[in-house]
Amino acid sequence: MKRRKTIPDHRKKLGEAIRVRRKELGLSQEGLAEVVDCHRNFVGRIERGEQNPTVDMLMRFSKALQCSVTDLFSEADL
Amino acid sequence: MKRRKTIPDHRKKLGEAIRVRRKELGLSQEGLAEVVDCHRNFVGRIERGEQNPTVDMLMRFSKALQCSVTDLFSEADL
Repeated sequence: MKRRKTIPDHRKKLGEAIRVRRKELGLSQEGLAEVVDCHRNFVGRIERGEQNPTVDMLMRFSKALQCSVTDLFSEADL
Repeated sequence: MKRRKTIPDHRKKLGEAIRVRRKELGLSQEGLAEVVDCHRNFVGRIERGEQNPTVDMLMRFSKALQCSVTDLFSEADL
């Protein structure tokens, strides 16, 4: 509610792909945050598309999610 | 020469994929910078992996390069 800007569609799609993959692995947001080594809130923000992640961060997420960054973007149809 | 940190391998690969695609289109760094609407030096830094681009920025690059972000990561083998 604090953000005024509209969330870009591509970020919503990427966030959703990350959420789907996380659930496939049976991980909670907290569990994923622990593997990625970031705050749990950050995972939530990524999944909702509120955060604009960098490539370095996406590499950490994809490793934690045991897939490639290509897989995540492909799943997000981006 | 100003950067002390080693450039991560994944950024070099992604930058190289962007460079290859740019050249396929016969674009100069300046030409690409104009379409992306960023500084020419920024394109150089992305291609050398010195810059850690965000997803929003990669979307702009992929549009300018007339391909998908998935294509870029796939080409970079990431």
